[in-house]
Amino acid sequence: MRTALFICFSLFLFSCKQSARHALVFQTDFGQKDGAVSAMKGVAFGISADLPIYDLTHEIPPFNIWEAAYRLEQTSRYWPEGTVFVSVVDPGVGSERKSVVLKTNTGHYFVTPDNGTLTLVAASMGIAEVREIDEAVNRRRGSGQSYTFHGRDVYAYTGARLAAGVIKFEEVGPKLPADVVRIAFAGAARLADGTLTGGIPVLDIQYGNVWTNIGDSTFKQLQVKAGDLLDVTFEKAGSFICRDTIPFVTTFAAVPEGAELAYLNSLMNLSFAINQGSFSDAHQVLSGPDWNVAIKKLNPVK
Amino acid sequence: MRTALFICFSLFLFSCKQSARHALVFQTDFGQKDGAVSAMKGVAFGISADLPIYDLTHEIPPFNIWEAAYRLEQTSRYWPEGTVFVSVVDPGVGSERKSVVLKTNTGHYFVTPDNGTLTLVAASMGIAEVREIDEAVNRRRGSGQSYTFHGRDVYAYTGARLAAGVIKFEEVGPKLPADVVRIAFAGAARLADGTLTGGIPVLDIQYGNVWTNIGDSTFKQLQVKAGDLLDVTFEKAGSFICRDTIPFVTTFAAVPEGAELAYLNSLMNLSFAINQGSFSDAHQVLSGPDWNVAIKKLNPVK
Amino acid sequence: MRTALFICFSLFLFSCKQSARHALVFQTDFGQKDGAVSAMKGVAFGISADLPIYDLTHEIPPFNIWEAAYRLEQTSRYWPEGTVFVSVVDPGVGSERKSVVLKTNTGHYFVTPDNGTLTLVAASMGIAEVREIDEAVNRRRGSGQSYTFHGRDVYAYTGARLAAGVIKFEEVGPKLPADVVRIAFAGAARLADGTLTGGIPVLDIQYGNVWTNIGDSTFKQLQVKAGDLLDVTFEKAGSFICRDTIPFVTTFAAVPEGAELAYLNSLMNLSFAINQGSFSDAHQVLSGPDWNVAIKKLNPVK
Repeated sequence: MRTALFICFSLFLFSCKQSARHALVFQTDFGQKDGAVSAMKGVAFGISADLPIYDLTHEIPPFNIWEAAYRLEQTSRYWPEGTVFVSVVDPGVGSERKSVVLKTNTGHYFVTPDNGTLTLVAASMGIAEVREIDEAVNRRRGSGQSYTFHGRDVYAYTGARLAAGVIKFEEVGPKLPADVVRIAFAGAARLADGTLTGGIPVLDIQYGNVWTNIGDSTFKQLQVKAGDLLDVTFEKAGSFICRDTIPFVTTFAAVPEGAELAYLNSLMNLSFAINQGSFSDAHQVLSGPDWNVAIKKLNPVK
Repeated sequence: MRTALFICFSLFLFSCKQSARHALVFQTDFGQKDGAVSAMKGVAFGISADLPIYDLTHEIPPFNIWEAAYRLEQTSRYWPEGTVFVSVVDPGVGSERKSVVLKTNTGHYFVTPDNGTLTLVAASMGIAEVREIDEAVNRRRGSGQSYTFHGRDVYAYTGARLAAGVIKFEEVGPKLPADVVRIAFAGAARLADGTLTGGIPVLDIQYGNVWTNIGDSTFKQLQVKAGDLLDVTFEKAGSFICRDTIPFVTTFAAVPEGAELAYLNSLMNLSFAINQGSFSDAHQVLSGPDWNVAIKKLNPVK
Repeated sequence: MRTALFICFSLFLFSCKQSARHALVFQTDFGQKDGAVSAMKGVAFGISADLPIYDLTHEIPPFNIWEAAYRLEQTSRYWPEGTVFVSVVDPGVGSERKSVVLKTNTGHYFVTPDNGTLTLVAASMGIAEVREIDEAVNRRRGSGQSYTFHGRDVYAYTGARLAAGVIKFEEVGPKLPADVVRIAFAGAARLADGTLTGGIPVLDIQYGNVWTNIGDSTFKQLQVKAGDLLDVTFEKAGSFICRDTIPFVTTFAAVPEGAELAYLNSLMNLSFAINQGSFSDAHQVLSGPDWNVAIKKLNPVK
């Protein structure tokens, strides 16, 4: 009798355990006007109907690996350990780039062509292990002839099987050296001779805000208080774009509608905005590895 | 033995009960090009992997509180009791607006800055109780320094915990007076001297249809039958925009392609359209609190 | 005691069985700027909180039944048997088109107005049975007065009840003859006198690639090897648009950035692209039932 009860209880635990689920999160440059994303999700759903499937974005500008890298870095830390990201921004589809799964030291997984997409998460989360996808086993049945849709037949398929626990990480394929292809980008922000310099990795595109890579700890070295004025110069590839005087504030509401402000964004990086307007449009400041910004603290008027 | 069976059965009921789940539904003006929405969902998923997470829209025009209010009103009644809506359209982020959760008389919950977003659901669903979010307890761990992303760290976090049953409504924070900040808007439609007047709260933007706030019960007072002609005048802020004669019909197919029609939309409000065209584009009729429409019934030609 | 254990075990099996879930997949031309899609999902969620709800796309160009048909055909085969698709592209809403559910020989279900949307899945998956939705029973409670939103009140409602197992397929409504309304379109590709002709049903819109209906088995008859040059002529409604010489390759990476290529796409149909550019924009080649392409193999230079 005790045995029987033990079995019952084990079954209960088993059904509870099933609900300790890991999410599968997709990122692509496919847009959502056609059926490509849905086909990927159909393949994933076919592997497990209980798999929680989410989107990061499908609006990465076509072939823009840098932005793919940035969006993974921006978002993945807010998903729990064990989450599997599938990122398909793949200008070199069919070329010699490897199909890999990165496991980070934080326990997140990234399934992607190794083409630079992993640059930023590898740096910030740390590389625990990299494995190459063995397409002999980790490829959707019946997809052998398909030339170009690795996103559905290899990446979505492998990511879903990993997230659902159908395969272990070790079953992805052979272990590679613990490194990834990295995109060169403007280095860390730094302060020298009273001038803080940094890059502009990305815009907050919906609002036209300009996000630098100057983190709060670096910015603190400039000893700026809320309300202080900053002297800001923007450059692209070393050429002058514009110069402006902008107050540093801790909330958009601290300046009138239409006024400029400098602030720490949700990633705690120094950013520039116009309250209810677009700083990027107003000043033609864009983003990318060749954009830079230089910042000085203005002396207060006495 | 009976006790043991009782335990087994209780465990089963418990696992059934878990599936009586409440949905978490997000609305923002963030768009879906960056990772902000995904970060919110990651936080919610981290609270419960079993939480059903959906979207209302993320395409509210930036800072347009009126449209945020309208979309909640348009949609929330179709979701079951217990659904938790998180709406983040927040031009005053960091200002003195309160972060609240509204429980309506219909048993729906709305997590949002109290900036007018609740105007319409408060009116139509009724206010059961309003509580201010106590950020000392209802704020994502480690988010203390983040200045501007209340959407993720307070609203998504609190909404997910409420929907997943991690906290009760009473644990959101202190009870406030049972009211919300309300946007002034064109009052109810009315009939006087044979003329029906009303507002144009919103467009059916995908098709360019013009949706008034004239409900079917008010419209019935004009005693219009299918096929009757309406004399319609559009105004903005009291200035004449255009005047037109439009047939009232009960289906788009009742008029030829390219022809105008008046009809009751899916919310049972009087609306204007061009069959397979855009009424809004053709007549430059837009929407908002300052748009009005006046309607008379034309005498039938004898 | 055995009986009791049997009950326990049955309960466990029952809770397992519940997780053999079928997905509900939505396609519309509504866009995602307003609340229409969310209202449909709210209705579906209200029927079963455990129903897996997904999107195909909501960006079908308004009223474009052909593209609706194409996207279903492109995508549905990647979802498992039992999946229920709800497609609402309905220019004739309120007209005499029937509301139907198609069950295909592959075991997929399609809930839609029968207006041509089923043209391609009926052809490729085969018709097992067609039933007309009996709106007397399969219509959301309280929606009797709603004139125009069949998408929410009939299609989403019926699709969700079917996917969740609340109704069986036989309970949808009366059986119709095993046929659907079909759109006329360019017939199958064919080879004659060394020239391969076919249609251009759709673009890969995100990248501007041109997708023909020439499948790999037909294309093989032209005996083209990777690297061979093709002489390609595009026509619209029988009028010449452009002529070009394009290499056939098996990967985008086989040609330089900015160069043209012919390849087999993820559906194994012959397609034309510019590596990291838009073939459609460069040559003003679009898609639809009146577009054609003619292809010859060039003799290799000796």
